Amino acid sequence: MLKIKLTLEYDGTRYVGWQIQPNGPSIQQEVEEALGQLLQTKCDVVGAGRTDAGVHARGQVAHVVLPKQVENRNLMNGLNALLPEDIRVLDAVEVDSDFHARYSAKSRVYRYQLALQPTALDRNYSWFVGGYQLDRGHLDTCAAAIVGEHDFTSFCRAESTLPHHLCTVTSARWLESDSLLCFEIAANRFVHGMVRALVGTMVEIARGYRTLEEFGALFAARDRRRAGMAAPAKGLFLERVIY
Amino acid sequence: MLKIKLTLEYDGTRYVGWQIQPNGPSIQQEVEEALGQLLQTKCDVVGAGRTDAGVHARGQVAHVVLPKQVENRNLMNGLNALLPEDIRVLDAVEVDSDFHARYSAKSRVYRYQLALQPTALDRNYSWFVGGYQLDRGHLDTCAAAIVGEHDFTSFCRAESTLPHHLCTVTSARWLESDSLLCFEIAANRFVHGMVRALVGTMVEIARGYRTLEEFGALFAARDRRRAGMAAPAKGLFLERVIY
Repeated sequence: MLKIKLTLEYDGTRYVGWQIQPNGPSIQQEVEEALGQLLQTKCDVVGAGRTDAGVHARGQVAHVVLPKQVENRNLMNGLNALLPEDIRVLDAVEVDSDFHARYSAKSRVYRYQLALQPTALDRNYSWFVGGYQLDRGHLDTCAAAIVGEHDFTSFCRAESTLPHHLCTVTSARWLESDSLLCFEIAANRFVHGMVRALVGTMVEIARGYRTLEEFGALFAARDRRRAGMAAPAKGLFLERVIY
Repeated sequence: MLKIKLTLEYDGTRYVGWQIQPNGPSIQQEVEEALGQLLQTKCDVVGAGRTDAGVHARGQVAHVVLPKQVENRNLMNGLNALLPEDIRVLDAVEVDSDFHARYSAKSRVYRYQLALQPTALDRNYSWFVGGYQLDRGHLDTCAAAIVGEHDFTSFCRAESTLPHHLCTVTSARWLESDSLLCFEIAANRFVHGMVRALVGTMVEIARGYRTLEEFGALFAARDRRRAGMAAPAKGLFLERVIY
């Protein structure tokens, strides 16, 4: 028995998300099928986070238990030869048997990309908000307010069945990168739809549709209907998982 | 009569190139069709450079003469509403009647992106060369040798009908950007296939397949068969045109 930690990059555009679902192709299914073909046995792949339909990853992590010894480099190259081009294995390393991609994770980092001008090259990787002016100072003020331990019920999908929605955000900031404005957030955990709800709400504030005071009140409100629209999935990236 | 300078970004993946050709969709044709639909008249669009099939642009420039006054912002938004998503108009400004997108250009900047690790997100925008080690020092030495006025016959497609292949390269350098290694080159003119031939040859040297001395000798050789393979089109971007 051999436990392997895989680091994956993927373009989520044509997938129903990380998790296997009956309604279309998922990343998890593609990786399990490639492993099955390579090793001629059924392998269960456990991911660190369940990215939604259309969400991308630069550094998703998954673990898998293999029935036999495989050289890491051969495993990575073999999987990349079998996987579709929009999913790549960036790394494969052996880990201790108690490693768990999801439960061993100390924090995760997500990035959300806004496009400030029309874009052909980033059309599937950003949300174009250039049609209106954004108050950058308001975005920074909101980001600073997000840091710390908060109840994110107002930014969690209504159908959540989690026992609580407390998350400790260790960093949250807006960065400019060429013609993109990116929101980067690191936290010990994320509730369902959290980054997209935060970004959607911050953009409404930066456009002047809501006030900064309303943003601060959202943590105490604990009501998803009070926050803004979710930003589109295509702008979101799971950047990395920290252990 | 009104002369307009358009700045265009496009994803060249599904096009036969900038120029109208009988064998498939071109950027020029898409822009001419969108203009025709918007203004209800035939418009000829003249581009600064003819990018090849699969080559992208972050700042292609084109000019067009319009039969009637159109507000720049309306022209840009109207075109973006009609154009396919992989072509975007970034800017539209009125210019003097003697402006010519191609002949008025003082220099052009191209960028070529190498991927040093497997990549899902940049699969259509880079050449993956991570299978072998590249000597970064050799790449920098080659780039420095390219700067200046040289005869680029060895780096020009054999079928060229240009009267000469002298180009003045004002800057050429390798830059690291995340997991990409990018070659950026600015010159007064480029001969056909020049950047892809330069990059293909430099990669052969950095892999150790050729020596640095061979590279220096290529300018004097004036023979395309002596240089390396052309790097794939998908890694190349026309970055901007300077007037």
